[in-house]
Amino acid sequence: MNMVIRNGVVLSMDSNKTVYKKGMVIITGDTISYTGREESSMIPRTSEIVDAKGGIIMPGLINTHTHIGMSLFRTLADDTADRLKKYLFPLEKKFVTPALVYQASLYSLTEMIEGGTTTFADMYYFEEKVADAAVKAGIRGILGESILNFPAPDSKEPYGGFVYTEKFMDSYSGNPLITPALAPHAPYSLDYNNLKKTAELAEKWNIPVLSHLAETPFETKQIADEFGLSPVQLYSRAGLLTPRLTAAHCIYIDDHDIDLIKHSGTGVAHNVAANLKSGRPISPALKMFDKGIPIGLGTDGPMSGNTVDIINLLGYTAKIHKLDNADRTVMPPEKVLEMATIGGARALHIDDKTGSLEAGKKADIIIVSTDSTPMFPIYDYYSAMVYCASPRDVNTVIINGKMIMQERELTTLNKNEIKTEAAKMVVKIKKQLEDY
Amino acid sequence: MNMVIRNGVVLSMDSNKTVYKKGMVIITGDTISYTGREESSMIPRTSEIVDAKGGIIMPGLINTHTHIGMSLFRTLADDTADRLKKYLFPLEKKFVTPALVYQASLYSLTEMIEGGTTTFADMYYFEEKVADAAVKAGIRGILGESILNFPAPDSKEPYGGFVYTEKFMDSYSGNPLITPALAPHAPYSLDYNNLKKTAELAEKWNIPVLSHLAETPFETKQIADEFGLSPVQLYSRAGLLTPRLTAAHCIYIDDHDIDLIKHSGTGVAHNVAANLKSGRPISPALKMFDKGIPIGLGTDGPMSGNTVDIINLLGYTAKIHKLDNADRTVMPPEKVLEMATIGGARALHIDDKTGSLEAGKKADIIIVSTDSTPMFPIYDYYSAMVYCASPRDVNTVIINGKMIMQERELTTLNKNEIKTEAAKMVVKIKKQLEDY
Repeated sequence: MNMVIRNGVVLSMDSNKTVYKKGMVIITGDTISYTGREESSMIPRTSEIVDAKGGIIMPGLINTHTHIGMSLFRTLADDTADRLKKYLFPLEKKFVTPALVYQASLYSLTEMIEGGTTTFADMYYFEEKVADAAVKAGIRGILGESILNFPAPDSKEPYGGFVYTEKFMDSYSGNPLITPALAPHAPYSLDYNNLKKTAELAEKWNIPVLSHLAETPFETKQIADEFGLSPVQLYSRAGLLTPRLTAAHCIYIDDHDIDLIKHSGTGVAHNVAANLKSGRPISPALKMFDKGIPIGLGTDGPMSGNTVDIINLLGYTAKIHKLDNADRTVMPPEKVLEMATIGGARALHIDDKTGSLEAGKKADIIIVSTDSTPMFPIYDYYSAMVYCASPRDVNTVIINGKMIMQERELTTLNKNEIKTEAAKMVVKIKKQLEDY
Repeated sequence: MNMVIRNGVVLSMDSNKTVYKKGMVIITGDTISYTGREESSMIPRTSEIVDAKGGIIMPGLINTHTHIGMSLFRTLADDTADRLKKYLFPLEKKFVTPALVYQASLYSLTEMIEGGTTTFADMYYFEEKVADAAVKAGIRGILGESILNFPAPDSKEPYGGFVYTEKFMDSYSGNPLITPALAPHAPYSLDYNNLKKTAELAEKWNIPVLSHLAETPFETKQIADEFGLSPVQLYSRAGLLTPRLTAAHCIYIDDHDIDLIKHSGTGVAHNVAANLKSGRPISPALKMFDKGIPIGLGTDGPMSGNTVDIINLLGYTAKIHKLDNADRTVMPPEKVLEMATIGGARALHIDDKTGSLEAGKKADIIIVSTDSTPMFPIYDYYSAMVYCASPRDVNTVIINGKMIMQERELTTLNKNEIKTEAAKMVVKIKKQLEDY
């Protein structure tokens, strides 16, 4: 069975950034078999035809770093200095169960799909429940159970994440959408032997690694005091800087660190809005991008971001690097959209599979409507996407060849049911907060 | 006739930032007669009842600086270094006619109202056409015809704006929604005598003044070279720093300038997203706010912003000042929402009339739905507005007691008709660009 998307402007995001003003994409099974000009003679018989109605046909957006199991804590104590210790940790201890992680994940997935995300990388607790939700949604995920040196909601023992990950791998072995990953939390929350162990297991199990890296000043100081190294240098020494790793944040890094990252093949997740909200400096993400380091965009968790859509990040990414460089020309919209699509795929080391609309790649495709008021006029489609679009302009989402949202209607998830169940849990959290 | 808005959370934005969790607002004619807890016994007979359906009832948003006559150039050459000289000025010369300004204004007004803006301040050419569009839309406007030392699309002579403004004042004398203003373009685009003349006419005519101020490094240098003064000092000497003035940008200012602004009663329009997009430094807007300077938010024109809604600015405003101060606690969401409402009213010197929901003020009110996916859960309503809301969550807009948008339907403007007319003009502009 074929699906044909026609009557739209195709932003292919291939290496030439080819744009087809009257474009067409043909999907055969789960794979793209044609991207190019619309030619009615090429449309196979017995195709399902999807009319883009003059909208933008582009690769699905890629969220390279988030924690969707946290969505039911969103808007809680947002700008409180000690929110982690005062609010989050006690709440996680009490409320983070498999049921909550599953429900919170389903909820965030409705938001992610409605905003055009087709692949996400996630680290949290009970990560198999995130995977269950992702499979139900039909979204592509690289999912890592957090590994840390203290007890977690799903492990009484420190480092319980190793055992969890092995089981998780077994359950999800061969799944076409889900890739279990090792997720060492951060350089400061695992000891050196366990960082090394993570690197060794990643090789042995042949799986990706997700981690926070160079995110906080406290981390830089602790690693310098203990090892006389930068966090990036420590990861290099532990064997973690490899093309398996996607490192989130990379804010507190210098040119030597950037060289290490570059030569290692490590991918980077740039979380601009969440970093700003935490009052952190600007990551040298553009410098890394310009040096050819694989780099994509991330929302971070819903307590950080606060929304989990990529489209709202596009304007931030464009603007913040213009500020950082005092130059409006350094970050044109086509570069921003590259980070959000094929850049994200590179950062997650799956650019052979997704991130652009090219024959042979998996069919992860969105259609963005140009009907809303801010989307007119359009002299430049990249500009419209980066500076004018809203996640709510996303009209259609196809993942792995399957229709996941059509004309804003989710096909795999029941939004109302998910919200009703989530709301019951939120009532309990609010009740608990009254006692604080 | 009364209108009663009930069944919502009222963010009054009064001086105590009173929140009524089950709140109600009663409107009598064009004025608010009650804001407080919902009491069914207080609802007057023969009231029109507006059900907020659990949403947020708050003051309409105030856009303190824009140029809506430019909306048909949006997404054109966005990140080109020399876009003004290469694209904008030749296009304005050829295309900026009364008809285009009227149509472009109507188009932006649909976007502004859909995003919850109830008052805007604007400077452009053929400003009376902006006023005509605003009256048709039913929105409150402080509107200034640009005055500059070179010929403009609506004036063959330099400084034609003076004559234009006098006529404009006559046409709009006594209009309940429109306040004509003098709009000296910037310190570098009027000579000293004409800056002084503007200040004198503002007194004589008893009207407000809108101007760009301290926006560019080029401006700082030119004024320093010619006068040995900062732009703010020059405006002070020319008699322009008064409670009549709303100065847009104020980026390149020092503590002495801030003191001058503070003691003069001048209002400031903070255009964070547009400034970032131009690669400018961060305005010390938070410092000014904390010193009690009247300051509100502005989108700048649709070629700068690029959207003309305030809600997308809320997150930028919150985050950029956390970055600037390396502190997540300096800019909590309630402060951001203050800037966007009563702060904007103060900056435009109309806070006796609008900007908060208090008995005696004009009824400029919006209802923001909390039904969309990103607006759940809500532990803090300010946080939800600043970090999660989209302009598309605005459900209802009331201006001066009149229903302007109900359940997302505009009551005064025909969106499709406006877009169709605007699209015809855009076709001509695109055709012209082919020859570039």
